[in-house]
This record gives sequence, C-alpha cells and structure tokens, in this order.
Amino acid sequence: MRDVAVIGVGLTKFGELWDKSFRQLIAEAGSQAILDAKIEGKDINALYIGSMSSGRFVEQEHIGALVAEVSGFSHLHIPATRVEGACASGALAVREGYFSIASGLNDIVVVGGIEKMNDVGGSQATAILATAADQEWEAFFGATFPGIYAMIATRHMHEYGTTKEQLAHVAVKNHANGALNPYAQYQKPITLDTVMKSTMVASPLGLMDCSPVSDGAASIVLCAADKAKNYTDKPIKIIGSGQASDTLALHGRRDICTLDSTVHAAQQAYKQAQIGPKDISFAEVHDCFTIAEICAIEDLGFVEKGKGGSAIEQKITTLDGTLPVNTSGGLKAKGHPVGATGVAQIVELTMQLRNEAGKRQVKDARYGLAHNVGGSGATCVVHIMEAM
Amino acid sequence: MRDVAVIGVGLTKFGELWDKSFRQLIAEAGSQAILDAKIEGKDINALYIGSMSSGRFVEQEHIGALVAEVSGFSHLHIPATRVEGACASGALAVREGYFSIASGLNDIVVVGGIEKMNDVGGSQATAILATAADQEWEAFFGATFPGIYAMIATRHMHEYGTTKEQLAHVAVKNHANGALNPYAQYQKPITLDTVMKSTMVASPLGLMDCSPVSDGAASIVLCAADKAKNYTDKPIKIIGSGQASDTLALHGRRDICTLDSTVHAAQQAYKQAQIGPKDISFAEVHDCFTIAEICAIEDLGFVEKGKGGSAIEQKITTLDGTLPVNTSGGLKAKGHPVGATGVAQIVELTMQLRNEAGKRQVKDARYGLAHNVGGSGATCVVHIMEAM
Repeated sequence: MRDVAVIGVGLTKFGELWDKSFRQLIAEAGSQAILDAKIEGKDINALYIGSMSSGRFVEQEHIGALVAEVSGFSHLHIPATRVEGACASGALAVREGYFSIASGLNDIVVVGGIEKMNDVGGSQATAILATAADQEWEAFFGATFPGIYAMIATRHMHEYGTTKEQLAHVAVKNHANGALNPYAQYQKPITLDTVMKSTMVASPLGLMDCSPVSDGAASIVLCAADKAKNYTDKPIKIIGSGQASDTLALHGRRDICTLDSTVHAAQQAYKQAQIGPKDISFAEVHDCFTIAEICAIEDLGFVEKGKGGSAIEQKITTLDGTLPVNTSGGLKAKGHPVGATGVAQIVELTMQLRNEAGKRQVKDARYGLAHNVGGSGATCVVHIMEAM
Repeated sequence: MRDVAVIGVGLTKFGELWDKSFRQLIAEAGSQAILDAKIEGKDINALYIGSMSSGRFVEQEHIGALVAEVSGFSHLHIPATRVEGACASGALAVREGYFSIASGLNDIVVVGGIEKMNDVGGSQATAILATAADQEWEAFFGATFPGIYAMIATRHMHEYGTTKEQLAHVAVKNHANGALNPYAQYQKPITLDTVMKSTMVASPLGLMDCSPVSDGAASIVLCAADKAKNYTDKPIKIIGSGQASDTLALHGRRDICTLDSTVHAAQQAYKQAQIGPKDISFAEVHDCFTIAEICAIEDLGFVEKGKGGSAIEQKITTLDGTLPVNTSGGLKAKGHPVGATGVAQIVELTMQLRNEAGKRQVKDARYGLAHNVGGSGATCVVHIMEAM
C-alpha cells in the first residue's frame, strides 16, 4: 500500500449555527481545505463524506453527490461516497479515502464530515442520536446515550474507585483547551465547582459531563505521500489506521468499562505505525462524556486500566502535561457535530504537527493520535500521524 | 491494484416480508454467502454494508456494527462500515469492499446490502425515498421519484419519439424474467395490456411502470483473486469498476434524458476491463421505472441515444435476444429493496457467469455488466465481471 498524507485542512466554527445551512457548512469547510492544499477541482479524484444521520437531522440522504454539487464539482462527475458509523462516521470517511489512495486508485481525495443537529429540537436530537444505540435492546426501553455512559461511569467508579471529581477534571481541562481554540463551541474556562454542581442528566453525569448538540463541518485533503510535497511544505502523514467493532448494545460486552473496539483498533494502528502508546506525543480522544475520555486513555494504553481517573487528576493530560489530550477542547468544549468529529480530530492533529495550533500548540510534538468512537463503542477508529 | 473475485453469494427472497426483521434478513443473506464461499468468521477481514435509509425505514443507524453482531462476529471485532449513496448504496459497498482488497489491506471481505421498506406505510416510503432527491429544490415542492422520472420520460418521448408501448415492453420483459427467478417479488408474467391500462401514477408512468416497495437483503463474499481458487472452482472476477456523480436535482443537468453519471461510470469500467459495450453478454440495469431502463441501455452504449425504446420493442434485450437485460427480473419484477439492489445485481451476474441461473440462464455468457443508480442519476456505479 502507498503512503498517504494530509495536505490541506478546513473547519467551520462549531456551535448552534442558526444562520448557516447544511450545504453552506460543508461547502465552507471543503473550500477552506481545498484552498489550504492549493489544489483545484480537476485535481480531485474522489470525495468521501462522513455523516451520521443526515436523513433524520436534515431529511436529506444521498449527501455524497450533494456535497460534490454544492462544492461546484457536478460538471466534473467526481465519485462521491457517504460513509456512516454513527459518531465515528468522520473517521470512517477518512479511512475509506486513505485506502482509496493507498490502493493506487486515487492520488488526491477530499474527505468531509458534517452534522447539522440543531435544526431539530433537543429531545428529537437525543432520539436521533439513540439510533446509534441498539434500537431493540436499548432505545426501545428508553435508554439514550447519557444513560448508557452513566452505566459505564457507575461501574468504573465501583470497580476502580473513580470519583465524580475526577470526571469533572476532564471537563475543566477540555474547556480550558477550548478557550484557546477559535473554532470551539465553548471558549471559556470553567471551574470544578461548575461541573460538580451542574444539573444532573443521568447520575453520575451532570450537564457539564456531556458534550453538546452541535452544528459543524470539517474537511481534509489527502494525497499520495510521494506527491504531497508538490502541494505543501508540511505534509502530515497517516502512519497508522485501525478499525474494530463490538456489540451495538452495552450488555453484550465482555466488560462495560473497556471498549474492546478501541483496544483492537489501537493495536492495529500501533502495529502499522511501528510505535507504542508511550511514543504518542498528544491525542484527540472521543470524550462524548467525561467518563469516555477516562476509558479512552486506558484502552489506548496510555495508562493502566482503572488509573484513568487519577491520571486526569494528576494533570498528566493537560496542555503542559506529559501527554496532552484533547488540545482542541475535545467533543466536550469544541463541540460534537457527530459526523464532523472524526475529521475535525485529523484537522487538529495536522495543525499541531504543522506547528500551527497557536495558543494551544503542543511543544515538540512528533506523533499524534486520533480516537473516534461510534455509539457506546460498537465502532472505533484510531489514526496515528507524523510530519513527513 | 490486486485483482478481486466473488467467491460466494447469498440472497433473501424479495417482497413484502412481514414475518422477517431487518436483522433476520441481513443475517440470512450473509450466512448464505458465507456458506456458499465455504469460509468461516475468522477468515473475514472486513464487512461493508449498503443501506439507503435504515435510519428512517427502521430507525436504526450504525448498522455496520449491527450486521457484524447479528452475524455472530462481535467477538472477532471485524471492522464494519456502512456506505450510502441512495439506491446505489449496494454497489458503493461492493466498490469499497473491492478497493479494500485491491489495496492489499484485506484478503476476504463480506459485502451486504439491505433495505426493509414495508415497515413504514406506502406514502411514508415514498417520502423517505424522496430524501435521495434534492430536498430543497425537488422534494420541498412535492416532487417524488415517480414524478421526476415521468419528466424524463416525457422529454424522451418528445425528443426521440419513444412511446408508452415501448415503456410497457420493458415491464413485460422484466416480469417474464422475474417469473423464472424464485427470489423475485413478482413471479408471474404480465401482458402489454396490463401495463398500458395500469393506474396512472405520474403521466406517462402507470403503476406497472414503477418498481415496487420491497424488503430484502443480498450478500457477496469478495476475495483476492490469487486466493479465490482455494475456496471455489468458479470465482467470478470484477474486471471493471466505475463511479460518477451528477447534480442531485434534475434541473441542473446538461440533458435530462442522459444520465451523465452513467456515461462516466461506464467509461471508467470499460477502460479498466479493456472492453467496450459491444463485448457485454448480458446486463443488470437500474430499472426503477421503465424509462430508466431505456435511458440505461443508451447511456451504457448498448444502443444509440434515442434508440432505446425501439431496441426494447425489437426484443433485443429479452432472455433470448442478442443482449439480455435484467435477466433477474430487474428492480421492476425482482423488487427494489434499495440498499440491497446493487449487491443483488452482482449476485445475478455471478450466478449467470457460474452457469447456475437455472431457467433464466443466458447461453455462453462471457462478460456481465451491473448498473446501479442513486436517485435520478446523481450517483452511478458500473461493474463488469468475467469468470476466471
């Protein structure tokens, strides 16, 4: 397989974007990435789009072709494919675009991720998100994701002594990082007290333990690595890509505190990159709820199982810690337009590895890791990147 | 890129399957394909699933992981990815599976296609299907697919003198073929008179010009060609794959009687296969409406533009004609569970090229072509196959 690099990135601000449509958002992120890569439409061999539920959020399926059209490429008849794996849709689109170049078929591929979630009401958004859970064994009985992750948190507390304060530290850290990111939905620091006293959603998770409902889009341009330097001085190579599945419903798992899909996807990515968790300089992980970040840093091998809570408390994962996690603000503060998230993580890795992350720049970063989860872990995708 | 072959196929009966669930259907098709290929779960490197709108038809997104689970593979953590491009979702899944092997990443991949459409009411099904059209420029104003294809038919009649009788001949032929296919939704021949007098849906298209609302699933097992003979004596190779896009709405097209996405996808597939339209022995084309088959045989280069209607009337495309088209019964008589259709076309090509198509077997077939369209042509995928 050929090596593949990112040569351009684009991002919209994440948030409640009442004045921008689905079409405007994806065109904005895509055109930014294309300008950043200094390519033209005729250079693009294919488009891949990640979106979880455009059919329910904006009543529009068939968005691959739509994205090609709103980007002004209809006359070029560029193949355009939508990929879906719930909240991991973005990373799946990255992976399909990556393999289409690695195979030798394509040289340049644009990958987009998008979700426009606020055009439906809040309770409707929660119901739509629950279509990523098992409809027959979970959603039918009233379980939605806050409740599902609350069960994981409760068990993690019971097994490992993780505390509500440790969960809260995740939110505090990610809001501190989000405050340094002009694209983040929430750009103000919060205190531990704010998180601890936030309205209870599903015990032990309060409102400030939950990522928000967001609108937004992200885009990257992928290029065969041997041609990347024709377009940019700073191509960022994908050196590892892993993907794994698990049961849709939580009750089928070996252990509800471990996302085996993360463990397996990470193993694949580390093996391909020929490095281990100790080599990672910084990571974007899937913190849809604070407990999810604690599980992630354990399952990715950064800390021992059960030690995630204390690692967060010891500030190992802050911007000036030994392993900065969610420098962008993460899903928690940057926002979580679900289909966009996996692509936005690659945008953050690229900006950090280019040394263009401004106030939130990680020093001397060599290897970045992105971890994108669908549902409560039925799908996981891990990518590892390095500057060329 | 490595060569790729089909080593196993599976299909459920298509129809109004009130007694089978979404989960049962995909497990049935998948297990048939796996048994046919004589492989085990541990041999499978990845799953790809095509489905247009599981989120709206059965309120379940994230079906990649679900299919892995209901197939009994959760413990293997096999990567599972859903692909969507409206009614071309099935062929897009085939294409992603194909490239994942061609790249060298995977050796064996199972591809499934599914739609369970009857669990919602008929008018709701039409509304869901319209999410494959442009929601802002078509569906919002009340246009659904029968009306959109009726516009294509009206213009084709005006430009080329195509007649309602010629449209009706498509339905008569495809029902005659469907009568020979035990998996078809409709297994009885119909007369020209029945089609001509059927209830008007959108002039000039009557009920018998339209493909039905269907439940069903299809599955194939893809294998690196150099390993295919370890599993079967009759591997069927994919020798060409093409994909192209166009505007989502009809009004943006250069010519509404020509699907440029078909023209471009076919050019790619012919070029890769190093053959031309005259070499094709038989084809499965996307006859969601009778007019669509007429456009398809023109745009695929089988007949000159405007001559599709007379070619059908001259019985060139019947089972004993010079170029049999839709030997399975096509979408019209076999049924059209949208996400399954593109995979089911590959199943039919494989059965014909294995010489296992029973009463509808094409004699001395060498090259088979499958043509799968999303919406009114915003997405098109063409595959060409040959026995190894």
